[in-house]
Amino acid sequence: MAPVIEFWFDFASTYSYPAAFAVEDAAAKRGVGVAWRSFLLGPIFAAQGWMDSPFNIYPAKGAYMWRDMERICAAQGLPLKRPSQFPRVAILACRVASRFKDEPWAGAFVKGIYHANFAEDRDIASPDVVGDILGRVGVDADAAIAAATAQDSKDAFRAQVDHAVARGLIGAPSFVVGDEIFWGGDRLTQALDWAIGAQAVDAGL
Amino acid sequence: MAPVIEFWFDFASTYSYPAAFAVEDAAAKRGVGVAWRSFLLGPIFAAQGWMDSPFNIYPAKGAYMWRDMERICAAQGLPLKRPSQFPRVAILACRVASRFKDEPWAGAFVKGIYHANFAEDRDIASPDVVGDILGRVGVDADAAIAAATAQDSKDAFRAQVDHAVARGLIGAPSFVVGDEIFWGGDRLTQALDWAIGAQAVDAGL
Repeated sequence: MAPVIEFWFDFASTYSYPAAFAVEDAAAKRGVGVAWRSFLLGPIFAAQGWMDSPFNIYPAKGAYMWRDMERICAAQGLPLKRPSQFPRVAILACRVASRFKDEPWAGAFVKGIYHANFAEDRDIASPDVVGDILGRVGVDADAAIAAATAQDSKDAFRAQVDHAVARGLIGAPSFVVGDEIFWGGDRLTQALDWAIGAQAVDAGL
Repeated sequence: MAPVIEFWFDFASTYSYPAAFAVEDAAAKRGVGVAWRSFLLGPIFAAQGWMDSPFNIYPAKGAYMWRDMERICAAQGLPLKRPSQFPRVAILACRVASRFKDEPWAGAFVKGIYHANFAEDRDIASPDVVGDILGRVGVDADAAIAAATAQDSKDAFRAQVDHAVARGLIGAPSFVVGDEIFWGGDRLTQALDWAIGAQAVDAGL
């Protein structure tokens, strides 16, 4: 069985955008699978007393982050257009990503939402935009949105968010390998190293 | 003229410990010099409303950081002993590092103080410990401490801290290349890439 890293992301998270576009290729090169795990930073930030993104609350942090995003996106060849609204809390998109996390189109959907938010400045909280991205990845948008907003899907997503908090996630993106958390897109290589090492141990090598 | 990265650190900063031990070798391999720049996180954290380390204020952040430090130090082969007092604000050591930043022993002194704090749990705020580390790197401790605590040295260090704040540094360690800031030990490679790229541009290549 191939090792897997869980990729935990919030669609409002800036640094998760380039990470979402990097994770699959980097993992595939190491023989590692990716599990897509959407969550919400809101409860985690609220526990720290923050009612807004720390990048808005602390101007120096925000200025650094936007410049850093420019450099990272340029290095990855990704377009970046600073969203006119930040952060965009996109619960419907998170629920879709949670409900359909095991579908083969899950990654394409996640990347489509990130691109809409950070490259096109579209309102990813809007059902129309979510439906448009679903259509682009070849999915029946109305049926998918109906399934993602059914009570059991809402409950499952809520449980996934609670799980993130209980596990000790402190930000996004986070890579999780077994009990180990690696916070930040720049920790992808280390997470993959760990996944391969852990797998080697499991296989008794 | 070889390109240079500035390494900005606070002796209280956990992540600066493994970074201080990594920066010279990594830079030398790329033909880049290192400029040691001590500062204090206190004024930067205070501007964010924090009167203590965020790792103490937010337990989830602290738990993650200490586990992360274990992994990073293990990967670098560095000993780690969680200090019985955290953070240790070591102004005298910062002043010594600032006053003698251009001396050939500056890096060895910085690493000695970090080792004392994070591998030996010694009180690096104490003049005795600072003097001991100075002696180990072959320096007359009494003379160095007298020079570092003279008013002009205090003023110069204060100006260095003010410069860090004005420049937009938000944490430690930070690597600075020209106007570009890279925050976090895990950004060393990117900072070196930038230093070499910037140098190539300066040389008209």
